[in-house]
Amino acid sequence: MSHPRYTDLILSLPASVPFVGPEVQERTRGAPFAARLGANENVFGPSPHALTAMRDALEGIWQYGDSASFDLKEALSAHLDVTPENLVIGEGIDGLLGYLVRLLIAPGDAVVTSDGAYPTFNYHVSGFGGVLHKLPYNGDHEDPDALFAKAAEVDAKLVYLANPDNPMGSWHEGDTILRALDMLPEGCLLLLDEAYVEFAPEGTAPRIAADDPRVIRMRTFSKAYGMAGARIGYAIGAPDLIRSFDKIRNHFGLNRAAQAGALAALQDQDWLAQTLARVDASRRQIADIAAKNGLIALPSATNFVTIDCGADGDFARRVLASLVNQDLFVRMPFAAPHDRCIRISCGREADLALFRAALPKALAEARA
Amino acid sequence: MSHPRYTDLILSLPASVPFVGPEVQERTRGAPFAARLGANENVFGPSPHALTAMRDALEGIWQYGDSASFDLKEALSAHLDVTPENLVIGEGIDGLLGYLVRLLIAPGDAVVTSDGAYPTFNYHVSGFGGVLHKLPYNGDHEDPDALFAKAAEVDAKLVYLANPDNPMGSWHEGDTILRALDMLPEGCLLLLDEAYVEFAPEGTAPRIAADDPRVIRMRTFSKAYGMAGARIGYAIGAPDLIRSFDKIRNHFGLNRAAQAGALAALQDQDWLAQTLARVDASRRQIADIAAKNGLIALPSATNFVTIDCGADGDFARRVLASLVNQDLFVRMPFAAPHDRCIRISCGREADLALFRAALPKALAEARA
Repeated sequence: MSHPRYTDLILSLPASVPFVGPEVQERTRGAPFAARLGANENVFGPSPHALTAMRDALEGIWQYGDSASFDLKEALSAHLDVTPENLVIGEGIDGLLGYLVRLLIAPGDAVVTSDGAYPTFNYHVSGFGGVLHKLPYNGDHEDPDALFAKAAEVDAKLVYLANPDNPMGSWHEGDTILRALDMLPEGCLLLLDEAYVEFAPEGTAPRIAADDPRVIRMRTFSKAYGMAGARIGYAIGAPDLIRSFDKIRNHFGLNRAAQAGALAALQDQDWLAQTLARVDASRRQIADIAAKNGLIALPSATNFVTIDCGADGDFARRVLASLVNQDLFVRMPFAAPHDRCIRISCGREADLALFRAALPKALAEARA
Repeated sequence: MSHPRYTDLILSLPASVPFVGPEVQERTRGAPFAARLGANENVFGPSPHALTAMRDALEGIWQYGDSASFDLKEALSAHLDVTPENLVIGEGIDGLLGYLVRLLIAPGDAVVTSDGAYPTFNYHVSGFGGVLHKLPYNGDHEDPDALFAKAAEVDAKLVYLANPDNPMGSWHEGDTILRALDMLPEGCLLLLDEAYVEFAPEGTAPRIAADDPRVIRMRTFSKAYGMAGARIGYAIGAPDLIRSFDKIRNHFGLNRAAQAGALAALQDQDWLAQTLARVDASRRQIADIAAKNGLIALPSATNFVTIDCGADGDFARRVLASLVNQDLFVRMPFAAPHDRCIRISCGREADLALFRAALPKALAEARA
């Protein structure tokens, strides 16, 4: 009997972490990155009003944040046309994913996701002892029909679907998801990860009532709103489910300045529109760079572009390694067959110039 | 079979939350508080250097924070004379408490604490299905010997002890805890909550080796460093235990500006010294106000003063209600016999002037 005695579940968990951050990579490499295009951060940054709001809020940083995030919820509820009772705010989508899994998944419970989808979701499922059933994508798209059918087959309590998808950048029309919902089995909750939805074409977000008990949607200020370092995400769902988060969440876990910043960011939809235009231009540039190198950029409804390197995973891993050696922080899909691709976050002109310069050499090295 | 299917544990949990925040109270009351003396926040605020560091970090808020909190850990390890492997940084002590309980406590596992000690710890224990054994204080002090004996009796995996204590403000000399440690049973981890330790007399922190597998200590930037709204806490423990947090924690859960602010706050020990002097002066003023009203202020090693109202819990609750009605945010101990007291956080002259003016009326109303 040693100090301390971990639970059996904890003892069964691997020591590995879902993502190695760029700062950790820089320290391992012993060199900084020249461009940061690997974590789908939004280099165009938050609204100046959000920066001002966060700066102004620092004077009050001696106070805990509002445990109910009242002002932010009010503003979101007006913006989304839902009630505040449909909203829970958390420490980014990652934090909310952990809470949601904890609400539903006990050891042995079945969960369905796509093979190669968001690793941090899988991390939380494993962390609570859930059994993951992973389905292949349908080409470069997640497959809602197959996911929901699998959920029925394995009696899943939770099924994960990202729309748009990360790491492939693909998307479904909202109506496609709405139709597929008919196949979602009783007792299975659809977790719809909409982290990138602001970047997607009109109609990508399905018209699901916020009170629909079959679905919880998650969104964030980390991507389109450019505040990844602030850690503010939110979930939209039926009031009973939303209330359940209060049984377990870290009630005073949110940074007070970040709460103020998210509110101001939401209120500056002009800035958001500018960001979307910049991201769209950046996507075109990345696709252009890919094409000039004889590669195919996949269509993207996100702030990144996934590029098919035209061969197998080993080839793409060599391309990636060379890009990293050339001081570019980039990542690639983990699972076959998508590991034939690399994934480039949208960047400024200067960031993309570095990528433009580095890609030919990376391909040459990978082919050598 | 409804949507969604919660775990049995979640269904068993109450909807109540450990603390109702002051903003929530203000909305319920329909009036703002004139002084905020209820949450042991540090109204003297963070070092100006910390404010500058957070302001400067906002430019980079589009990036996730460093998942390893490398710079902050390096600085803390130098400051505390421990290795970075002895440190984990989290979303305040509250966040770390949740992670620690999850590491150790499965449904039915025994945990020992004092009756009336930190409710958020109890919240997490219940949230993971642990069985709480609550011991009475010894007078106004937690009782390490009794806690550890109880831990042996019930085969506890975890025992909670705060030093200094909240809500009583009392403390033990470090050597007292060190001696009691001999009675800590095998297989039981001591969670030593040192949230207030910077305010305490020299010698209050026991000289326990960071590698000692029997103990984990938790500290925070929320109290003496004046950054409650930033959400940065840390734990000091044996490397194996510290590494275990990486199996479950929200790796990218910390606000990037808060990480920079905590680093700068730590590096400004002159500001900390000024804060401690201000807090000490404020404690004396609160004790003086109590004495002038015929009440006894308990000795405090924290940034609050617990005042014995000289009667029972109902009386103190009436005093508290009147203070709240007079627009003072204050709280009181939850459990008898300590609910004979009210608890006043240290404040500025203006805050204490309001308390000085309100207390006689509150006592008169309570006696009426």
